[in-house]
Amino acid sequence: MKKRISILGSTGSIGTQTLDVIREHRDRFEVVALGAMQNIDELEKQIDEFKPKFVAVYDKNKADILKNRISSKTKIISSIEGLIEIASLNDIDLVLNSVVGSIGLLPTLHAIKARKNIALANKETLVVGGELITKELERYNVNIIPVDSEHSAIFQCLQGEKREAISKLILTASGGPFNNWELENLKDVTYKEALKHPNWSMGKKISIDSATLMNKGLEVIEAKWLFDIDVDKIEVVIHPQSIIHSMVEFKDTSVIAQLGLPDMRLPIQYALTYPKRLEMKSPGLNFMKYNSLTFNEPDYNKFPCLRLAYDAMKIGGTMPCVLNAANEVLVNLFLEQKIKFFDIPYYIEKIMDIHEPSNYNSYEELLEVDIWAREWITKNIR
Amino acid sequence: MKKRISILGSTGSIGTQTLDVIREHRDRFEVVALGAMQNIDELEKQIDEFKPKFVAVYDKNKADILKNRISSKTKIISSIEGLIEIASLNDIDLVLNSVVGSIGLLPTLHAIKARKNIALANKETLVVGGELITKELERYNVNIIPVDSEHSAIFQCLQGEKREAISKLILTASGGPFNNWELENLKDVTYKEALKHPNWSMGKKISIDSATLMNKGLEVIEAKWLFDIDVDKIEVVIHPQSIIHSMVEFKDTSVIAQLGLPDMRLPIQYALTYPKRLEMKSPGLNFMKYNSLTFNEPDYNKFPCLRLAYDAMKIGGTMPCVLNAANEVLVNLFLEQKIKFFDIPYYIEKIMDIHEPSNYNSYEELLEVDIWAREWITKNIR
Repeated sequence: MKKRISILGSTGSIGTQTLDVIREHRDRFEVVALGAMQNIDELEKQIDEFKPKFVAVYDKNKADILKNRISSKTKIISSIEGLIEIASLNDIDLVLNSVVGSIGLLPTLHAIKARKNIALANKETLVVGGELITKELERYNVNIIPVDSEHSAIFQCLQGEKREAISKLILTASGGPFNNWELENLKDVTYKEALKHPNWSMGKKISIDSATLMNKGLEVIEAKWLFDIDVDKIEVVIHPQSIIHSMVEFKDTSVIAQLGLPDMRLPIQYALTYPKRLEMKSPGLNFMKYNSLTFNEPDYNKFPCLRLAYDAMKIGGTMPCVLNAANEVLVNLFLEQKIKFFDIPYYIEKIMDIHEPSNYNSYEELLEVDIWAREWITKNIR
Repeated sequence: MKKRISILGSTGSIGTQTLDVIREHRDRFEVVALGAMQNIDELEKQIDEFKPKFVAVYDKNKADILKNRISSKTKIISSIEGLIEIASLNDIDLVLNSVVGSIGLLPTLHAIKARKNIALANKETLVVGGELITKELERYNVNIIPVDSEHSAIFQCLQGEKREAISKLILTASGGPFNNWELENLKDVTYKEALKHPNWSMGKKISIDSATLMNKGLEVIEAKWLFDIDVDKIEVVIHPQSIIHSMVEFKDTSVIAQLGLPDMRLPIQYALTYPKRLEMKSPGLNFMKYNSLTFNEPDYNKFPCLRLAYDAMKIGGTMPCVLNAANEVLVNLFLEQKIKFFDIPYYIEKIMDIHEPSNYNSYEELLEVDIWAREWITKNIR
């Protein structure tokens, strides 16, 4: 029987690569639903090719335009309710959530309540609501399979191993486009320079996060929740070639690592086919080509965002939510050339200083904090 | 309850390191038996410390001397029968076989028949008698846990994975002391130069095998039998730092690797405690110290032994037995300064040319071929 899949964020980088994977294995997967924020041109093509039963468009106006454009039997639904609906449909086996930003949290929550397996690319789900999500996963007995290459690597390294044997997780980071730049030169970098990731072709938000190393910070928080491990036992190592996607050290000092070309289709496919592995129509890793793998320590002066993320996680409660919301707004402002590169950590540190973190028990509490943080940043930009 | 262990080859490099591991975990292991070829001075110390019930000494005269020296309740037995006896005692849970050379095959066979779990460091067991051993393992439903760092690495990488998902095994090789030497300069190397392994401190036989890369060739054959995989799907990659101990590539192109410091106590401990991992009282891998891992292709002109091992395995039957027997004799002759470095592959190729390989069904047939090969080499040395 085919695995029936709903893809949230189908027009983004992860979404389109997920469809690439499915295209190679049409006999194994059925695309039941697609969801996106607003890119209806791409959605129209995807509907034509994959003929999903449901399509959710967050932007209501765009949803209406799309409705008029298509003649198929696909049902078009809109707004956050639309995304929630396609995350909890009866006739799906797996939800792949690759929405960008904290907006992905609510659909994940609903997918859990509907007892769906979840392939998670939306790291904000766990960064913002890790505690809540973890409780719900336990309550509904649902598992998350990570899609991020680092977390997929760790997930793969942990197969057949016992959680209590872990001594630490080693997340590798490419170091982004500014790994070899001097601190002074970073002050005036443009968003175009920041978007030039050396190894991965990704969306804009995550590319900027990779340039500030906030992406790695968010991944540290995500790893903490995914693998139920203390943040002190999560280490970040710069590995510019992005071949070793991450590692696990066990208490006997043995290290298990997962390697591969920097190609997101591998972790995506693994999440779709887990616990099986299917053939991949691409050449494997050639060690004669990638004949030198190097490591260095992250520079917290150049990349204060990484330290801020560690701090936010150690403080806990609503602090990671504030860190994430502020970062989302600041990255947009940087892309709009309204702030400079170092304004991103500057304002995050500022808002973390004034925020009084509290524990939370519901999505609504988190949403309130998220909105407050976004408004505070918008108001306080000098 | 303590795991009751019998160690064959207890005075060698692997044997003494096995006792190091046991010393760190005295509450978990009981040394029931020890066996060695002839080093009774070391055995005497080991008897004093570990108080085994049985000690086997291959050399009969040495066994008699030892008997007179010790006053404990330890029973001293001798010759190959002694080694066989301690490999199949009633009151042991695990046999660690670290005897050097094809003499280790018969005790392994008897351990299988006695349905003992086997931690195998004696690679000749599988190189010489892989087909026979594999059949017997199946018949008696016994498992081998590899001790060689490369095979332990692969064994660890395969935990939680399905055999049919493997696309290839990647055995790493340090390249030995002559990795960066020019071909011409190898002609007159001394055994002292050949013994200087860059990363590992090992016994003499395996050190010379590492210098010729025959060790890697034997490991390819061993891996073929251990993991039931075609020899064409076993690749050797030179990795001079010996940090990545080996890797598995799966058919989705994902590569899982095991890393660690070059310290045999790790794979030894893993074999003793499998499927558990116990703490190791040594610092783990520091990627800031080992900050560059490199790879290159093996040079078959400099190291023809590696190619000969592949060839022997592809031919199959009694050919790997001939390769191994010839190599054992030739390595000894090289250590005695009676032949030169390149005489080792030269005579192995010669004997492989004249040997007409056949299938075998018993240990006795293998023994006959083994003896023939040893005699042929001894007679035909120019």
